Amino acid sequence: MVIDKYNQRAEKVNSLVCVGLDTDFEKLPEKFKRSKHPQFEFNKDIVDATHEFAAAFKANIAFYEARGDIGIRELKMTMEYLREKYSDIFTICDAKRADIGNTNNGYVTAIFDVLGFDAMTLQPYLGKEALKPFLDRKDKGCIILCRTSNPGAGELQDLNVVQAIGLPFKPLWQVVAEKVRDEWNYNHNCMLVVGATYPEEMKVIRSLVGEMTLLVPGVGAQGGTVKAMVEAGLNSDKKGLIINSSRGIIFAENPAGEAKKLRDEVNKY
Amino acid sequence: MVIDKYNQRAEKVNSLVCVGLDTDFEKLPEKFKRSKHPQFEFNKDIVDATHEFAAAFKANIAFYEARGDIGIRELKMTMEYLREKYSDIFTICDAKRADIGNTNNGYVTAIFDVLGFDAMTLQPYLGKEALKPFLDRKDKGCIILCRTSNPGAGELQDLNVVQAIGLPFKPLWQVVAEKVRDEWNYNHNCMLVVGATYPEEMKVIRSLVGEMTLLVPGVGAQGGTVKAMVEAGLNSDKKGLIINSSRGIIFAENPAGEAKKLRDEVNKY
Repeated sequence: MVIDKYNQRAEKVNSLVCVGLDTDFEKLPEKFKRSKHPQFEFNKDIVDATHEFAAAFKANIAFYEARGDIGIRELKMTMEYLREKYSDIFTICDAKRADIGNTNNGYVTAIFDVLGFDAMTLQPYLGKEALKPFLDRKDKGCIILCRTSNPGAGELQDLNVVQAIGLPFKPLWQVVAEKVRDEWNYNHNCMLVVGATYPEEMKVIRSLVGEMTLLVPGVGAQGGTVKAMVEAGLNSDKKGLIINSSRGIIFAENPAGEAKKLRDEVNKY
Repeated sequence: MVIDKYNQRAEKVNSLVCVGLDTDFEKLPEKFKRSKHPQFEFNKDIVDATHEFAAAFKANIAFYEARGDIGIRELKMTMEYLREKYSDIFTICDAKRADIGNTNNGYVTAIFDVLGFDAMTLQPYLGKEALKPFLDRKDKGCIILCRTSNPGAGELQDLNVVQAIGLPFKPLWQVVAEKVRDEWNYNHNCMLVVGATYPEEMKVIRSLVGEMTLLVPGVGAQGGTVKAMVEAGLNSDKKGLIINSSRGIIFAENPAGEAKKLRDEVNKY
């Protein structure tokens, strides 16, 4: 299973931390802005500094697309560097994609093959049939948005759904979690996005999806607390979480120190 | 309003047709595959051949991302060519994006500013608060997925939602349509995606959203019929539809002929 790569790395470095390469060009120190490949050079430094505490790296592709073709090239360089030097670290493209049917082949090629990520994040709104080109890739991880970390996540995700007359209501995020568990995960390559900012929902999701791994954004800068999230989200194997911090690590004065601090805090609980 | 550009062009060429530049590299004729900029050269030919029947061009960015940074560069070249020669034609990036809050700035920059599209398609699952960076752009169109054209669209979009005890159920796509109408459209720049494959739903959506413009994929290759869709979807001004055909036009032997045929068929009803 694709998640084995993550679990083996997590075991090896005793860490559930994912370092988010949200490499916003505007926030880069001047010396990088002036370099030939600003986002790549910055990522290289961050990866070298933090790798020993990282079970995964996650790149949000929006920050690279903002620079057009140049940004995409620098993301590709970053991935080549990771494969060359740290090939056992799990890589996630936070792209939140989903189109209809075959059009998705473009994203499959772009993100799984050209860039070479191990996993990517996906939107559920178009349904399983649309996502087939992703779900069919046994060798890659499909991380479906379930309960996102943003303050307004509930506007749609908390809507009460009635699946049959007489049955109790369920929030939409619960229906998504159950569908992924029962129908979408036929290749054992699905995971869910559950924001650290919603520990109550995370507890319910953990009880619903068994051992399935959850990608957890929203720790730190967005205000999620580590304790609540770890207590709510670990699976029976004391794993099952990919705990992402981006800005809180990469733009800190001491990125390695922040990555270590998060790892240690997670391991405390 | 941003939609004025579309309406003026539609008036000028007496057409509600949008030509979809779903320029799949694998499907290109050999002479383009061997050229220096295959996707751009192909698009240039298609644009020159079909522009007189086109009120809009829509590029699905997945087909360009599949080629990495090279594809994005050729999409940019396409947009530069359109701005130079046919600046009154409305341009849509079918990107189906949505991330949380400020991360969306990357997509805003990439698609509205670097590439220069007039409008883009967006996923609703993260809610209005997340989409603010798009919705705030008065000068650009935000086209929210409501009822997509794929066969499995109903898996989530048809879920029955209860908004308050005692009120009747509504399908999720209806809730999305009402939210966009009542809350998300504060800059009068929102539209909805409604597949031509679902004319019954389109009729309801038209009755709900008044004059709002709908982007309609799924005509032709996907099986939607023009008559049903036009009868269900026109607004009181005999406009309000952006009727997209991609493969059915651009990979036909005579793209101009197919574009004209679709325009004439739409105008018949």
